[in-house]
Amino acid sequence: MLSDPSAIDRDRLSRCAQQLADAGRELGARGWTPATSSNFSMRLDTAHVAITRSGGDKGRLGPEDIMVVDLDGRAIEPGLRPSAETALHVQLYRRFPDAGAVLHTHSRTQTVASRWFAPAGVVRLHGWELQKAIAGTTTHAALLELPVFPNSQDMRVLGAAIDAWLDAGKPLPGYLIDGHGIYAWGHDMAEARRHLDAFQFLLDCELDLIRLGRACP
Amino acid sequence: MLSDPSAIDRDRLSRCAQQLADAGRELGARGWTPATSSNFSMRLDTAHVAITRSGGDKGRLGPEDIMVVDLDGRAIEPGLRPSAETALHVQLYRRFPDAGAVLHTHSRTQTVASRWFAPAGVVRLHGWELQKAIAGTTTHAALLELPVFPNSQDMRVLGAAIDAWLDAGKPLPGYLIDGHGIYAWGHDMAEARRHLDAFQFLLDCELDLIRLGRACP
Amino acid sequence: MLSDPSAIDRDRLSRCAQQLADAGRELGARGWTPATSSNFSMRLDTAHVAITRSGGDKGRLGPEDIMVVDLDGRAIEPGLRPSAETALHVQLYRRFPDAGAVLHTHSRTQTVASRWFAPAGVVRLHGWELQKAIAGTTTHAALLELPVFPNSQDMRVLGAAIDAWLDAGKPLPGYLIDGHGIYAWGHDMAEARRHLDAFQFLLDCELDLIRLGRACP
Amino acid sequence: MLSDPSAIDRDRLSRCAQQLADAGRELGARGWTPATSSNFSMRLDTAHVAITRSGGDKGRLGPEDIMVVDLDGRAIEPGLRPSAETALHVQLYRRFPDAGAVLHTHSRTQTVASRWFAPAGVVRLHGWELQKAIAGTTTHAALLELPVFPNSQDMRVLGAAIDAWLDAGKPLPGYLIDGHGIYAWGHDMAEARRHLDAFQFLLDCELDLIRLGRACP
Repeated sequence: MLSDPSAIDRDRLSRCAQQLADAGRELGARGWTPATSSNFSMRLDTAHVAITRSGGDKGRLGPEDIMVVDLDGRAIEPGLRPSAETALHVQLYRRFPDAGAVLHTHSRTQTVASRWFAPAGVVRLHGWELQKAIAGTTTHAALLELPVFPNSQDMRVLGAAIDAWLDAGKPLPGYLIDGHGIYAWGHDMAEARRHLDAFQFLLDCELDLIRLGRACP
Repeated sequence: MLSDPSAIDRDRLSRCAQQLADAGRELGARGWTPATSSNFSMRLDTAHVAITRSGGDKGRLGPEDIMVVDLDGRAIEPGLRPSAETALHVQLYRRFPDAGAVLHTHSRTQTVASRWFAPAGVVRLHGWELQKAIAGTTTHAALLELPVFPNSQDMRVLGAAIDAWLDAGKPLPGYLIDGHGIYAWGHDMAEARRHLDAFQFLLDCELDLIRLGRACP
Repeated sequence: MLSDPSAIDRDRLSRCAQQLADAGRELGARGWTPATSSNFSMRLDTAHVAITRSGGDKGRLGPEDIMVVDLDGRAIEPGLRPSAETALHVQLYRRFPDAGAVLHTHSRTQTVASRWFAPAGVVRLHGWELQKAIAGTTTHAALLELPVFPNSQDMRVLGAAIDAWLDAGKPLPGYLIDGHGIYAWGHDMAEARRHLDAFQFLLDCELDLIRLGRACP
Repeated sequence: MLSDPSAIDRDRLSRCAQQLADAGRELGARGWTPATSSNFSMRLDTAHVAITRSGGDKGRLGPEDIMVVDLDGRAIEPGLRPSAETALHVQLYRRFPDAGAVLHTHSRTQTVASRWFAPAGVVRLHGWELQKAIAGTTTHAALLELPVFPNSQDMRVLGAAIDAWLDAGKPLPGYLIDGHGIYAWGHDMAEARRHLDAFQFLLDCELDLIRLGRACP
């Protein structure tokens, strides 16, 4: 049974569409959404999510590029087909009741880091002051683990890997997909953006250290 | 026998000249057309191609910087001399009847990758989600081969190497020339731009992985 | 006993707030103040300092984002709480009577260099013409030492390490904190900015040389 | 005996000052003139040169920042003191009668390359298509040698090293100074800019190849 489209708060949808367009334009300008990749979403209410549609230049999003889905990822308006990655967005809204915005991008740094750390399955962040930009982290001395899941064109395979991580009780501040990109989120768009920026910065620093040989001999 | 200049659709030529100027300005702003290098073209009809003239700043193309040649690379208007690389553009239009736009640039990444992969003769792309931006590629698991041909100041030598690759029945999604740059194309300018952007991103990622030592130990 | 707020020269405070906002906007645009990190200050008179308040985007500073503290780091207006790092700023104004402006940023280069050189405890700069941009340095042949102090969430621990360095009589042209960022200063904002730019450039060059293997074999 | 200031063509001086300001603004925006470094000049006539004065931000040059010197580097107007590097500019105008513009910058790439190649004393460029941007080079197969001279705060020492290179009959398309930067020139400002851009691109490519391990194994 589909949700009732008339139940959506149109004012809230309009404000979310604007925030999604702003995020797309600013992240696109940095080259984090190459070709027609990447997708962004915001929670509208306890049962609905506004999300970017498949394809299109994410740097130039208009109201017509945003659609509404329920928490199972089904379009509430007939005839619109959600992108495949919608399944990963709604999984996060189901598993994290506080999540209000989800950002999926693939900058060069995110893509390369995902590939380089894939054999280890995780990026272990430690000793960086900027870890404090991630909600719940209060010291550089904490260990922050960002998992890397194997890529798949089948979203059920990807979703199952993420569920397995969470079901094992491990903290999930964000995740990478091998050769593909990153998912970051927050209670609102501002926090999701801060988390995305912090992960980009920390991954840049980690890759720089590796290129340097980790530490001065 | 030369083509008849009066047979050219002037409206189509004007629209193509605008798209070529837009591409030149945007690619030039990224530093992909250093000095007076690079050239761009679009197919006008089954027998003609609009192409940038030799020399000049490719970031500031006006109508007078575009000329029309036939599929053998001869100017249809007497007195205009096409650039040497025109031969490589028309070869692509002859061999790929669907090709509508060809872009030749030499960014730092394209140039360095061409040189580094020259001994192998090919860049083997595998495992990157963004490979899907190349027409006909539907999964990151595909193998995408981008050949690197030796550089020559004699376009006949270069053309023969490309013909030999195609005559051997190998797919050709684009190609590099050693120490020189890249050729990318598509059925229209938008697809040629998407292919060029995807190759730049994928070459950047490959070079980054090599600098990191391929994968975490 | 707190200072008397009415003793502050409001014109000077207003001019300093403008210079702090300009510095924040320009350094923020370069990505040197990720998330809500970084802080900037200027000396108002022999007993007071204008400094950025905790949190907030340092790229968009308004007059309300600046507060006045005494040289012990206490707010002169009741109810305002200075950021933790205020203690490090006022330490510099106490120890260097000529210091007129202090800048704390954490660019990727500053952060990575701080981490890579941490085991050595110091970056030894030598042979760079741009060392002459640091006040008191007149030749590339001089040795310029930039210490790296271990990071701590306790500012008293950090302050003690800096005091110990100075009490040992060693020159301190600026300093790094491991995994965190840089502190640079000057007799006015222009000199502080020049010092910060020079350290960024010199750290970039040092890291580049290390990635290259120091020198051609 | 000093030159007669009234002998200077004021219209030509004004046009040169504009070209020098344009070059300073564009090169400064790229970060190639850190702190108050770098200097630029143009030949006014057979006996005079317009050159930037010492100090100041080279990104914001006004007419008052340009002075006129003779080919021995002496100011033609009493009271103005030329910068130390003026001696290196006029040496180039004396030794190359066709030189019309000289640019001295220190980008990060130029500075790092100067330091890395200093032990070899020369950068040997070979196999790059963009070498053709250097006047007199018609093929990527040519060998282009860019010497690296040891840095000195004494311009007479530097000048003697350059004279020795030229007196040995070796071609000099430009030169680096160890830990310092580059000098490039051309018959006019456009050619000097093209040479400077080409050297920057070629040095970037060479350093990239070294970081990659020269060639694919």
